[in-house]
Amino acid sequence: MSLPNHFELLATDAQARTGRLTTPHGVVRSPAFMPCGTAGAMKGVHWREVRDAGSDIVLGNTYHLMLRPGAERIAALGGLQRFTGWNGPMLTDSGGFQVMSLSDLRKLSENAVTFRSHIDGAKVELSPERSIEVQRLLGSDIAMQLDECVRLPAERADIERAMQLSLRWAERSKRAFEAAPSGTMLFGIVQGGDLPDLRQASARRLADIGFHGYAIGGLAVGEPQAVMLSMIEQTAPCLPSDRPRYLMGVGTPEDILEAVARGIDMFDCVMPTRNGRHGVAFTRFGQINLRNARHADDPRPLGEESPWPAARSYARAYLHHLVKSGETLGAMLLSEINIAYYQQLMQGMRDAIGTGTFEEFRTRTRAGWARGDIDPR
Amino acid sequence: MSLPNHFELLATDAQARTGRLTTPHGVVRSPAFMPCGTAGAMKGVHWREVRDAGSDIVLGNTYHLMLRPGAERIAALGGLQRFTGWNGPMLTDSGGFQVMSLSDLRKLSENAVTFRSHIDGAKVELSPERSIEVQRLLGSDIAMQLDECVRLPAERADIERAMQLSLRWAERSKRAFEAAPSGTMLFGIVQGGDLPDLRQASARRLADIGFHGYAIGGLAVGEPQAVMLSMIEQTAPCLPSDRPRYLMGVGTPEDILEAVARGIDMFDCVMPTRNGRHGVAFTRFGQINLRNARHADDPRPLGEESPWPAARSYARAYLHHLVKSGETLGAMLLSEINIAYYQQLMQGMRDAIGTGTFEEFRTRTRAGWARGDIDPR
Repeated sequence: MSLPNHFELLATDAQARTGRLTTPHGVVRSPAFMPCGTAGAMKGVHWREVRDAGSDIVLGNTYHLMLRPGAERIAALGGLQRFTGWNGPMLTDSGGFQVMSLSDLRKLSENAVTFRSHIDGAKVELSPERSIEVQRLLGSDIAMQLDECVRLPAERADIERAMQLSLRWAERSKRAFEAAPSGTMLFGIVQGGDLPDLRQASARRLADIGFHGYAIGGLAVGEPQAVMLSMIEQTAPCLPSDRPRYLMGVGTPEDILEAVARGIDMFDCVMPTRNGRHGVAFTRFGQINLRNARHADDPRPLGEESPWPAARSYARAYLHHLVKSGETLGAMLLSEINIAYYQQLMQGMRDAIGTGTFEEFRTRTRAGWARGDIDPR
Repeated sequence: MSLPNHFELLATDAQARTGRLTTPHGVVRSPAFMPCGTAGAMKGVHWREVRDAGSDIVLGNTYHLMLRPGAERIAALGGLQRFTGWNGPMLTDSGGFQVMSLSDLRKLSENAVTFRSHIDGAKVELSPERSIEVQRLLGSDIAMQLDECVRLPAERADIERAMQLSLRWAERSKRAFEAAPSGTMLFGIVQGGDLPDLRQASARRLADIGFHGYAIGGLAVGEPQAVMLSMIEQTAPCLPSDRPRYLMGVGTPEDILEAVARGIDMFDCVMPTRNGRHGVAFTRFGQINLRNARHADDPRPLGEESPWPAARSYARAYLHHLVKSGETLGAMLLSEINIAYYQQLMQGMRDAIGTGTFEEFRTRTRAGWARGDIDPR
């Protein structure tokens, strides 16, 4: 059964697409980048800065939030938006990916995944139905089905088993979602590792089941970029063209640019804030490691032409000092600068697709990254 | 020789005073609280928030800055204001206090204190003259003389020796300061531990030497509050009434209120940001530990009537969650909330002194703190 379509495709340019996704908490312009507010907070960044930087939507992690402070508690407090003060659209993942990567003693069965909390060791069961229930309690605008993600490289048999289980969980997720109708959305997740035939079978079956949108999961988990892009190329055409396509957990600015060129609409990644905490800035001339001594005496900002004030106004010497000194302000400034750069890139792509100049934008943007940072002074 | 007076006393109310101190980077309203931007950054707080919270002036630590990134480097980059982006008045300490508390292998002589850097083990000599030079390189609006501070309790002989050395260093500091005239200021520092006669002798001698302002040092270093207040009572009358009086390293809101009642004009303390990082909020109803489980389900803000947005808009439940989860945003929000509360207290005192109602303000404020936090919900 088909679900209502909240996505409006505004323009395409070759495979690249720009559109609008309307959620209960507002409109998301696509291609969209979702910064990760993992445990109900953006690490080192105020919500108003997330918004001012151009973010329409953020991601919350079901695994973290269900363990602490708890989904029922957040529901009693009015949902994630009210709880956190982020008043815009929010997508929540299913919890499955973190269960696989963070918890001890996980046990997978047909019914559910059982694991011990990394916080207090409590035994928790997460089924497709419970994941939907938790995401509903959180007040998510876009919920994700529970799936099983296999780290690559892996054997075909393992990849196929996880892909088939994910499809059965997709059906159960949809049934659970439909049992309590709302204005929110549910996305299915394509699995299939690095095997094109499995990817395509997964995508076609999900399209048959019918979701508000479709994610490609299980990529950027250890495989080369070329494999990831090839999987996107072979999967995207099997997904309904009128629905949003979300590439989970990706990635670098280059990953995103190339994925948009292959028809992806949505992304999420911890990279802007994580790299910011490690002293790395994303700029139009590539990544810059502020820890490097070349910046110690440099009065120039990261980017004189950046639209983001902190990228224009703070000297590299100051950012270097903050990073070297372990001052929180260094992580704070670089995290917001990085989110702003990602959103500036997304806006550039949206504009270019809208005017049919995406290929020029892509060439110009790649040339900037390849040029590299300005010479030391 | 007398130094020019940049302090204007606007009103007094019993011993309490309100005034204006004009520095090269702007006017400081007194009583003034100076948040501590230790190593060129306010821990977890953006400079614009420091300013918006009502801070006219901040403190920078000479010890930290001379070791990293280095005074000569900051001078080459245009001074602390330009380097950090904090464009208002800045007071720097002399470096002496941190030498005593943070560095290994310090050796005190008549000429200077020699120590090993806690960062790289380098051997560094800090004389009164070098301290003035460093503070000038930093571009400080208010420089402090190098002094020796004795932790209490201590023997009379030790207290007296340190007090006399500090006086000799005061003279040398002034000579060094006057050798290169500028629009900036130099404050002398009263020592004398918990011994009234030594405190008074120190204050009178400093007044004879003549400074732009006078600090009371060596308090809040282990003695009971009553001893600290008694020392202020017995020292303040020995200081020139037309010059600003600065109580170093103090303190809790109650310490500050009581010190203002005894004629103090300026304060600095790491408490708002340090306690914020530890999950403690300062409010008109006293200190609130957000780590406490009583807040876990409480949708109410810290203070519905607070003039500071973050104190009004975030639920206690959210702040509790951030603190428990170790999210940087918790420390960021509580630090700015605490600076704002301190500045709100200072503004309340300034207004009350100006209208001759300080005693009522003091009684009302103490009653609020004594009342304690609202009941759990």
